[in-house]
Amino acid sequence: MANFHGLNSITLNPDDELPPLASGKIRLYNMRFCPYAERAVLYFAKKNVSVEVINVNLVDKPKWYLERNPLGKVPTIEHDGKIIYESAVVAEYLDDIFPDSSVLPKDPYLRAHQKILVERLSAISGAFYGLLRATADNQEAGIANLKKALDTAESLLTDNFYGGKSSGYADMLVWPHLERVEVLPLIRPDLHLDKLLGTDYPKLTAYIARMKELPEVKVAIRPAEHHVQFFDSYKTGKPDYNIGITAA
Amino acid sequence: MANFHGLNSITLNPDDELPPLASGKIRLYNMRFCPYAERAVLYFAKKNVSVEVINVNLVDKPKWYLERNPLGKVPTIEHDGKIIYESAVVAEYLDDIFPDSSVLPKDPYLRAHQKILVERLSAISGAFYGLLRATADNQEAGIANLKKALDTAESLLTDNFYGGKSSGYADMLVWPHLERVEVLPLIRPDLHLDKLLGTDYPKLTAYIARMKELPEVKVAIRPAEHHVQFFDSYKTGKPDYNIGITAA
Repeated sequence: MANFHGLNSITLNPDDELPPLASGKIRLYNMRFCPYAERAVLYFAKKNVSVEVINVNLVDKPKWYLERNPLGKVPTIEHDGKIIYESAVVAEYLDDIFPDSSVLPKDPYLRAHQKILVERLSAISGAFYGLLRATADNQEAGIANLKKALDTAESLLTDNFYGGKSSGYADMLVWPHLERVEVLPLIRPDLHLDKLLGTDYPKLTAYIARMKELPEVKVAIRPAEHHVQFFDSYKTGKPDYNIGITAA
Repeated sequence: MANFHGLNSITLNPDDELPPLASGKIRLYNMRFCPYAERAVLYFAKKNVSVEVINVNLVDKPKWYLERNPLGKVPTIEHDGKIIYESAVVAEYLDDIFPDSSVLPKDPYLRAHQKILVERLSAISGAFYGLLRATADNQEAGIANLKKALDTAESLLTDNFYGGKSSGYADMLVWPHLERVEVLPLIRPDLHLDKLLGTDYPKLTAYIARMKELPEVKVAIRPAEHHVQFFDSYKTGKPDYNIGITAA
């Protein structure tokens, strides 16, 4: 997408110098496999806002990154000396400064409703991370947890999208975790999750297919095999942040 | 305060009937000792918005409550058939429908900054709940955790309030947990936390004194001995939600 510059640029390490940011430009500090940062990528894509992406090593954090975000997490955006982080705060900030492309509805109740949906769907991320690390002792509880989260997601889907007829705020915020849930059977083949999504969640399955057709999702999504390779490297304590980057 | 009706009304149980809500009125479903519900109380008080309060038993949850909020948590507000929950969502909704008394600033960056402060100060609530339940095994780690959270809070306080010269959104959202941290030495005398706040955190100590002078805090705050009695009852699995209510 023409509005992204550097979405797949090489990840910067502590020894790398931070390129200067031109006045008026917006920069996104990103990690290519972080679902929270992906929320910001989806938002920039959906709003078609021009952005320069800096990919950051989150295990060995550059000093210049911690100076900008003391929590050391992604996403962070920088804009005329202003620093904004936390994925939901970044999304609202982008809507506030570019109101013409606001993803959040203007109506107070509909706005609140989108945020409540995100809260109710957040059980998916908890369940995903639980299963990612599940041991023989707790994998049964983890699978039950995921089923419960997906049951909720299935029941809350009453239209094409969580945003209604078109995709909205809740869709942008929940998608990155659903993308990873879909890949979980490949990341953890030992858990035998293959059929989990397909048969029990017809609405959610159709929703995932629908989401994959959205231009913003096409920008942000990573191939399943890259997710698998990333998590394999992550487990070793040395995540490979540059998986899938092809030499220029 | 004249705008509150029923802030200290008797807590309703599953067998109690829910009184009808008049059209145009706003109702807050509350639990008198819940810090998240207290955020909403502070917000209604600060904005001087008229509200009817229903106190709800959160151990034995009334069916009518779960129908309104499937998560069964407080605060929830009800307003002309609309249901809004999650404390931060409730606060923004109240600002959206009563913009003249908006607590959140209009400027996008200042808005974002208030929300980032809440995120950074949220370590206080985690540390508080950790110490509330601390055992001999983990109390040292719990105390270190609280100190770290308070160090951050001390360093982030660069003016009279987190909102700046006057109290703001971040103050309303962080206060309920600070109120409880101050009472922690009485709830858990075995942890010897008495001098924790007084000596190491001069800015925070002055801030707490300043907060207690605000009209909205005077409405929402509970006496230390009521917090202690509540937590003593909570530990038994039978929380006494009606501590401090005097017969009409």
